[in-house]
Amino acid sequence: MPTAVAPANIAFIKYWGMRDTHATLPFNGSLSMNLDTCLTTTSVTLDEQLTTDEVILAMYQQPATVATGRPRERVVAHLDRLRALAGSPCRVRVQSANTFPADAGIASSAAGFAALTLAAAAAFGLPLDTPALSRLARLSGSGSAARSIPTGYVEWYNGDDSTSLAASIAAPEHWDLADVVAVVDTRPKQVGSAENHRLAATSPYFNTRLAELEPRLPATRAAILARDFEQLALHTEADAIAMHVVCMTQTPPSFYWNPATLAVMAAVRAWRAAGLPACYTMDAGANVHVICEGTYRAEVERRLQALPEVQFTIANRVGAGARLLPDTP
Amino acid sequence: MPTAVAPANIAFIKYWGMRDTHATLPFNGSLSMNLDTCLTTTSVTLDEQLTTDEVILAMYQQPATVATGRPRERVVAHLDRLRALAGSPCRVRVQSANTFPADAGIASSAAGFAALTLAAAAAFGLPLDTPALSRLARLSGSGSAARSIPTGYVEWYNGDDSTSLAASIAAPEHWDLADVVAVVDTRPKQVGSAENHRLAATSPYFNTRLAELEPRLPATRAAILARDFEQLALHTEADAIAMHVVCMTQTPPSFYWNPATLAVMAAVRAWRAAGLPACYTMDAGANVHVICEGTYRAEVERRLQALPEVQFTIANRVGAGARLLPDTP
Repeated sequence: MPTAVAPANIAFIKYWGMRDTHATLPFNGSLSMNLDTCLTTTSVTLDEQLTTDEVILAMYQQPATVATGRPRERVVAHLDRLRALAGSPCRVRVQSANTFPADAGIASSAAGFAALTLAAAAAFGLPLDTPALSRLARLSGSGSAARSIPTGYVEWYNGDDSTSLAASIAAPEHWDLADVVAVVDTRPKQVGSAENHRLAATSPYFNTRLAELEPRLPATRAAILARDFEQLALHTEADAIAMHVVCMTQTPPSFYWNPATLAVMAAVRAWRAAGLPACYTMDAGANVHVICEGTYRAEVERRLQALPEVQFTIANRVGAGARLLPDTP
Repeated sequence: MPTAVAPANIAFIKYWGMRDTHATLPFNGSLSMNLDTCLTTTSVTLDEQLTTDEVILAMYQQPATVATGRPRERVVAHLDRLRALAGSPCRVRVQSANTFPADAGIASSAAGFAALTLAAAAAFGLPLDTPALSRLARLSGSGSAARSIPTGYVEWYNGDDSTSLAASIAAPEHWDLADVVAVVDTRPKQVGSAENHRLAATSPYFNTRLAELEPRLPATRAAILARDFEQLALHTEADAIAMHVVCMTQTPPSFYWNPATLAVMAAVRAWRAAGLPACYTMDAGANVHVICEGTYRAEVERRLQALPEVQFTIANRVGAGARLLPDTP
């Protein structure tokens, strides 16, 4: 029973907007780091007795339940892709569990589909390397799953169906960054990322963001490689704002920030202005990811936990990519 | 002792960004309505005994104090303009009082400089008509003061120094709209409008907003003239977001929204989705202006007052422009 663990990842430069919904191709390249404590563990068991796939999901702080509807359909569609590659008709049992809240802007679907891709590839005996697994994870429809396959700091290239995949640009040890997630809301978001990836291009600001990224993506990559926190902070916050600007100005507008989000953002800006090197970014959800160097992690955690708007924090270091558990045959 | 009363105004299409800081020329035309309860009353008395202007300001809920520093300098600079027009060297005593919080996104400087322009023009015996007064109010540096001179619904044209002035496009009776200001913060904002008017063009989104306004401004004017609330709501919210997007993406970024702002915005969106025709807009401050037709005003007030984030509300109908008090000679 192959079991894979895959990390959520937090993007410094976001994937936002899908130019090809069939192949899950983005409009822009993106940059992220894997998280070492926000993980999904997924096992895939071939079972010739089954006539349909059985998908059992244990979400954060909830009992395991048999998935139905759209969540199940997405998993089955991805399994169909792997069955086609393997030339196998065999149905499977999928068991998956999260260590963190899902659908709340902590990339649960990225972790989930990366783990599923790796576990299912192993179950079907597919000899895929990291680039091939990353490309395949991308095709799941949760594009940023591509970034949860390689290790450490990761870039997802904007290419065509065969070249749009993610690769590691630096190992976790390259730079001891932390992502302290300030959880302000554990409820699932009202509008899913997939819907807004489709609507993004209706924003009049969408192309402006893409134009901004022409210099910003290489500058952010350079900041990571040079361990230049100040530059990374500048670009990370600016692109987070830009992504949410696109949401707020699309048709119809969509708002992920809630009042607590804004309170945490203001606090982080004030801390940085007063000398604590930390910056924020938000994915498609209300929770705020506060990035800092490892040496400031405890202080950032302490300050975030002291904010009345913060329910709890999840501290992450830079993590490895998706991997099979050692007891997997 | 000429005494003038002038209204604050709330813009449906914002004035944001100054292309000529000397002449206070905007990058775009704007549309607003005057408020009938957010008023500034200003008297100007010529006094040949004075060697410098004496400026006494009574801000909202504060005792009258003699202005110093930058607030006084702005008033004196505007008085110098009027003295030059009148060919008079005479110093004056200015007494001014507000019925609403200043520097909090309720256009206190627009009301203040419109009232000052009218009272001082009367004091110096300048025979200026409404267009000339509007142009002169614009030159105060608080450009939207130009919109507080004419009555009712007002358009400020983007022209050159002689043609960029505001005119009434409809009387207050044309359409019974209300602006219920949800006051969530009475503290003065951290970054003044003037500073951000200068920085606006550093936003990569600045020109995108201007391009959006090409169709949006005439569409908003048409919505006002046709009393089409749905279209007005759509464009008003979109341009409010666009203005704040420009702030959030300029260098350095500036944020006027606070958590309570976002809570009120979300409430208003939910109310409209559930059938209550109301929309929001925010000027350069955290307070939220909720626009609705008069028939829904009481309900909007009731709901806003029930929100824990709202300290109090200020309800306005559409108001007249700046006027001299009848007992003024």
